[in-house]
Amino acid sequence: MNQNRPIRVALLGAGSVGSQVARILLENADELAARVGAPLLLTGIAVRNVDAKRDVDLPKELFTDDAERLILGSDIVIELMGGIDPAKGLISLALSTGADVVTANKALIAAHGPELFDQARRVGAQLTYEAAVAGAIPIIRPLRDSLAGDRVERILGIVNGTTNFILDRMHTRGDSLEEALRIATELGYAEADPTADIGGYDAQQKAAILASIAFHTEVPVELVHREGITEITIEQIERAKAAGFVVKLLAICERVTTSDGVEGISARVYPALVDAQHPLASVHGGNNAVFVQAQAAGDLMFYGAGAGGVETASAVLGDLVSSARRRVNGGPGLGESTHADLPVLEVGEITTRYQIILEVHDRPGVLAEIAKVFSDFGVSVSTLEQRSAGAHDGATASAGHADGESEGGATLVIGTHAATERALSALAEALAAHEASRRVTGVLRVEGAL
Amino acid sequence: MNQNRPIRVALLGAGSVGSQVARILLENADELAARVGAPLLLTGIAVRNVDAKRDVDLPKELFTDDAERLILGSDIVIELMGGIDPAKGLISLALSTGADVVTANKALIAAHGPELFDQARRVGAQLTYEAAVAGAIPIIRPLRDSLAGDRVERILGIVNGTTNFILDRMHTRGDSLEEALRIATELGYAEADPTADIGGYDAQQKAAILASIAFHTEVPVELVHREGITEITIEQIERAKAAGFVVKLLAICERVTTSDGVEGISARVYPALVDAQHPLASVHGGNNAVFVQAQAAGDLMFYGAGAGGVETASAVLGDLVSSARRRVNGGPGLGESTHADLPVLEVGEITTRYQIILEVHDRPGVLAEIAKVFSDFGVSVSTLEQRSAGAHDGATASAGHADGESEGGATLVIGTHAATERALSALAEALAAHEASRRVTGVLRVEGAL
Repeated sequence: MNQNRPIRVALLGAGSVGSQVARILLENADELAARVGAPLLLTGIAVRNVDAKRDVDLPKELFTDDAERLILGSDIVIELMGGIDPAKGLISLALSTGADVVTANKALIAAHGPELFDQARRVGAQLTYEAAVAGAIPIIRPLRDSLAGDRVERILGIVNGTTNFILDRMHTRGDSLEEALRIATELGYAEADPTADIGGYDAQQKAAILASIAFHTEVPVELVHREGITEITIEQIERAKAAGFVVKLLAICERVTTSDGVEGISARVYPALVDAQHPLASVHGGNNAVFVQAQAAGDLMFYGAGAGGVETASAVLGDLVSSARRRVNGGPGLGESTHADLPVLEVGEITTRYQIILEVHDRPGVLAEIAKVFSDFGVSVSTLEQRSAGAHDGATASAGHADGESEGGATLVIGTHAATERALSALAEALAAHEASRRVTGVLRVEGAL
Repeated sequence: MNQNRPIRVALLGAGSVGSQVARILLENADELAARVGAPLLLTGIAVRNVDAKRDVDLPKELFTDDAERLILGSDIVIELMGGIDPAKGLISLALSTGADVVTANKALIAAHGPELFDQARRVGAQLTYEAAVAGAIPIIRPLRDSLAGDRVERILGIVNGTTNFILDRMHTRGDSLEEALRIATELGYAEADPTADIGGYDAQQKAAILASIAFHTEVPVELVHREGITEITIEQIERAKAAGFVVKLLAICERVTTSDGVEGISARVYPALVDAQHPLASVHGGNNAVFVQAQAAGDLMFYGAGAGGVETASAVLGDLVSSARRRVNGGPGLGESTHADLPVLEVGEITTRYQIILEVHDRPGVLAEIAKVFSDFGVSVSTLEQRSAGAHDGATASAGHADGESEGGATLVIGTHAATERALSALAEALAAHEASRRVTGVLRVEGAL
């Protein structure tokens, strides 16, 4: 079987994922050769500084700082440098020589995927990126291949482990956002600058990638509505918990038909309430999960580690072996497809449900006034709970004290029926401005109806 | 794009899955053509009786009772008849013409997979079977392709929806096995003859298929140890629940090194205790889930509908679109691989843990006698709970009454540390025969350690 000539593999980057990929390529060489039908020969590892200390002990002679030279003469190039430059140019160079490329670079695929896929298609090379979304979890290939004959209706993804870790700590241990973030940083779940995670930017890129594949449509990352978790308070988490919900940062990709009959898709990222019985609610710690609703298949969920060097290396190696097998067996690969080309709708067009927590002056007629605001905006109320400030409700009471005006207040927890995001956000503004209201302490969307 | 010539698709069988496949092929023809790059032309549906009533209204002129004639001249043949004959001969005929074959036939793949894969390889055709295991859930392709560069260590699968439905009813509603089976039959989850499901035969076939792919080894179905759920009592379920466990029928595929240093694999099916916090514990109703532990990827879980006509059709269509794309783009497909060829170990070699429930005579020294039996068999005790018959424990009390000997009895609930299946089963026999014991009311394995 292995009389076939070796497949020459170049690695760009030797960070936490790259060093694990190199280690496994070297340690499991025989096993991988048996699976591919030819040896996988690691020809070199391009890094900025060849003398830097690495997580994994790797043969010194493999390192080079000349990425371009390493790429020339390779059959497959693995790009694990991250970022746009110089990764984009190097991938493009590799494709121009006819090499297949495997990458975990979500920022690059989200921003420049279509252009690179196009280049790959023209030269008959393969560009794969399973590791770019949800780390070790196979999700790109199932969406692209396994569900190729089905119609994906909706994806709800927990695709950022850092924020899931933080929200899970807040939910299960009662930590504040700051405490939970500090622990996430200590344990290595969060970067020194956590903005990409807690601001939702990382999830935004992944949402763009998932929506592109699921709906066969180019989804520019700028069209993905994004809200992070920075405004989430322990009070909101506790209220959610009391009401039977869990707060999760979700990447949501959906087919939508607007009230005007426009068929399109929506991709958005925000913290949302998920029913405690929903499969996504039991995704704890730094794990990821992608919940897919398809027309024929029904509900599917893919669960596992969303990050980590060795875990993500598994996804990279899966792509590598697939590309290598294709080289041994011959024949072109499968290109990306954007044949559907649906419009990407703005978040205002989307139908969702809100849970609004509102502190109001406790005087006669206030409920009727508030109810009128809802009806003025055409939003119907699904559930309403009223609590006086005097009730045994820690969160309410402390909120009241913070105002220095604990008497005469009441708290309304209002769940809405589905309405457009536009109507709901206008409603929330009007409620905040209404003279009967003292403070809006929480506005969260509810997703993943059971 | 669609100036390509149509791909000619023949369908064998028009049962609950076949009729849905036909419907979707006809209804979504444009969408599927766009994804494939060529139209998918359904040339006919071979059935035994062309005049039989169908679940779905399909054009009469498509039906034929001449399967062989339909196969000749097809590019892709979808086999959804089930059973070994005539399915095997027809698939073999299709492959001999160079056609690709898509099947959902688990019995056939488990029994004759290697022979058929071999035939496919020789003619350069593709034989795919995503729908054979866990219905709509993409699991075959992720195991074969996404984890191709990783090393699967263990699979724990809930792969039979009927038994999961029954066990879930018993756990969540307290139904007896008979009641739960009756409801499963009424709701269409169980067949008129439920033996294949509740006897574990269906799960056994799926375990053989999963183990073959995961470990690159031929795993004959006869070498898969099999126990069904027919002996499971509501008493066992309730005791499991009280101890923080859920009873699930698991298909287990594992890499194992025996005490003699033999590396091999084990595939087995039996009802086992799963920790209530384990992701598999929250798989309710007729759903399936496959929990995969891989060396690099860590823990993954794939969850969804395990059966149902339209759900399973999704998996069939995924395979169909992949094969069709390959026809349009040219090039050979990926064959199955059995290069590892590991020995399949007998269940006696396997290391597991037991939970044993034992009613004993409540007299001085009995605990020491029982403890000696454990140590004689080299099995160490992890947890021990003793209850007198007089304690407020419904299950114990009623068991005592059933014996007509409620005074003088005590119940021991003993959890063991890991030991070989051989030692544990000999121990359980010895306990049953011991003069201090009155009755062994439960012996269940514990799987899926957290």
